[in-house]
Amino acid sequence: MDAGYHSYETESTHTAGKVITCKAAVAWGPGQPLVIEDVQVAPPQKMEVRVKILFTSICHTDLSSWKGENEAQRAYPRILGHEAAGIVESVGEGVEDMKIGDHVIPFFQGECGTCICCRSQKTNLCQKFGVNPLKSVMVNDGKTRFSTMDGNPIFHFLNTSTFSQYTVLDSACVVKIDTKAPLEKMSLLSCGVSTGVGAAWNVANVQPGSSVAIFGLGAVGLAVAEGARVRGASKIIGVDINPSKFFKAGKAVGITEFINPKDLDVPVHEKIGAITEGGVDYSFECVGNLEVLREAFLSTHTGWGLTVLLGIHPSPMLLPLHPMELFNGRQIVGSIFGGFKGKTQLPKLAEQCMCGVGKS
Amino acid sequence: MDAGYHSYETESTHTAGKVITCKAAVAWGPGQPLVIEDVQVAPPQKMEVRVKILFTSICHTDLSSWKGENEAQRAYPRILGHEAAGIVESVGEGVEDMKIGDHVIPFFQGECGTCICCRSQKTNLCQKFGVNPLKSVMVNDGKTRFSTMDGNPIFHFLNTSTFSQYTVLDSACVVKIDTKAPLEKMSLLSCGVSTGVGAAWNVANVQPGSSVAIFGLGAVGLAVAEGARVRGASKIIGVDINPSKFFKAGKAVGITEFINPKDLDVPVHEKIGAITEGGVDYSFECVGNLEVLREAFLSTHTGWGLTVLLGIHPSPMLLPLHPMELFNGRQIVGSIFGGFKGKTQLPKLAEQCMCGVGKS
Repeated sequence: MDAGYHSYETESTHTAGKVITCKAAVAWGPGQPLVIEDVQVAPPQKMEVRVKILFTSICHTDLSSWKGENEAQRAYPRILGHEAAGIVESVGEGVEDMKIGDHVIPFFQGECGTCICCRSQKTNLCQKFGVNPLKSVMVNDGKTRFSTMDGNPIFHFLNTSTFSQYTVLDSACVVKIDTKAPLEKMSLLSCGVSTGVGAAWNVANVQPGSSVAIFGLGAVGLAVAEGARVRGASKIIGVDINPSKFFKAGKAVGITEFINPKDLDVPVHEKIGAITEGGVDYSFECVGNLEVLREAFLSTHTGWGLTVLLGIHPSPMLLPLHPMELFNGRQIVGSIFGGFKGKTQLPKLAEQCMCGVGKS
Repeated sequence: MDAGYHSYETESTHTAGKVITCKAAVAWGPGQPLVIEDVQVAPPQKMEVRVKILFTSICHTDLSSWKGENEAQRAYPRILGHEAAGIVESVGEGVEDMKIGDHVIPFFQGECGTCICCRSQKTNLCQKFGVNPLKSVMVNDGKTRFSTMDGNPIFHFLNTSTFSQYTVLDSACVVKIDTKAPLEKMSLLSCGVSTGVGAAWNVANVQPGSSVAIFGLGAVGLAVAEGARVRGASKIIGVDINPSKFFKAGKAVGITEFINPKDLDVPVHEKIGAITEGGVDYSFECVGNLEVLREAFLSTHTGWGLTVLLGIHPSPMLLPLHPMELFNGRQIVGSIFGGFKGKTQLPKLAEQCMCGVGKS
């Protein structure tokens, strides 16, 4: 939104502790045009951080929430957006790991650091600040930090609400990164790139020489490919009904083969089985479609195939799998934020991206 | 069926290479009483073994197949039974790891030793001799080795067909064990005990100090408990609507707490969550019921809970899970024969059982 983030500390001393009036894109109802309007942003409370958002990007989850397609969009008015990068404007009581002027990335899957999940190495869930599409207020006091100019509450979204020049985050949902990292690119670490790369690294743990199929070549799917390429996967199959995604970006991130389901007269999983001696080692569903999920599941090799779910599926459909199909040794797992613990691991990922992930 | 297995080699020299007439329990149609009648058993062909069955037990899968409740029972007449122990009567061409008089255990999930699955350490599936409920003939020639006295074929079942005094098996589906092992008990290694113990050891990899919930305390569920106990699980919760299973056998295999769903006014998973600080590390579905499966899934802790499916579920129901529920970090996997590779691992398990599994 604004690349002028120099001499920021001086500016901040005028606003810390005060309500800030700034522009935000406010959603007033499902499918209604976002309204760019003045909003009031209260100062951060205990263990909260107020961030000047300099860059924000749009993820498909923002889009589907705006349309009202999933559980997320229940509270109005609301400020959407969860993929961003910015600078700390001020911090609330008790925040010690960030200070005014720090470059930061917000993230929707928080990390309190103290709950049983945060203390476990097996998960990146957080019992206190984990993503909850129904949550629309701050954990501290159950209130919002946004309000309209006439004082009515505007609700939060996915712990972040980045479609605003300023936002307030729980400190568990924002992390400091190297000031040399280019913030306009770091925005993508806030969701898409982390979700995809992490699914390959942390969730699937893609092994050298293995085979991978990626269903859906949006930002997340392409990031999965990059993650798989870095891990040394020897065959990376991209599946999408839009071939331009492959030709424009897929080759650069290591996709070795492209399948357009519209070009086939057999199901995708049969085609993949034929070109991989029985199926891939890993498949990634980055679409959020049950038919695609089933194809992704059947595209893996029996005995050890692993399907990772990344796409957001609308309620209330059931998994399109028969219990006995699990007896073929294929597994399916869900992944949120690529299995990354935001506070602990994002700064390192940012460094890797600065060097080019592929070189790390 | 017959404990008189001494001086067997002498007896066998009279039958090797010839058709044997013996008694078998023949299923003529779904739900029809098994008929104990004379059948003819042809000599073993290349890489096959003919076994004198001395002990056979009944597994619930025999029962449901007999009733016609699952895919298995499609071919009639058929000889059911897949849990047994016996002695090699004769071997076909090329069989080198077994000879007349060897004590053996048949197993329905074969191990050819050469396919891509058998060569992998990640799975106990076998592409050539894996269990297939629709398969009813021998792999060698697509024919049966059983026939009625007037020469009509009687079909095979689950690679084994042990409800017969003699049966013919692919050598990939039968393994030699220590002659000192008590065959009347070893029969259970042919399915139930291996399936349960192996689910805890090989599939879930239960860790010391962990918590476990077992849904269904039949032979398989009790074997899961024994496997979890040996691994040092600190809390083993048994769930069954028949409390006598717990009191008669559950305590002996280490079940620490018993839940009868009929005694509760909340769902089982809520009760388990309450007594385990949020859920167990592992749950095992040993019933084959979709409602139970869902309770088992929800009984595990978010972030890392693993549900292992052991029960056989009738077609064509779908998994009663929403795709987004996988985003809570719970996983679900299927298991066949407890993940054991029969040829490679059963002899060791037989030894462990001879010492008492718990002591190993």
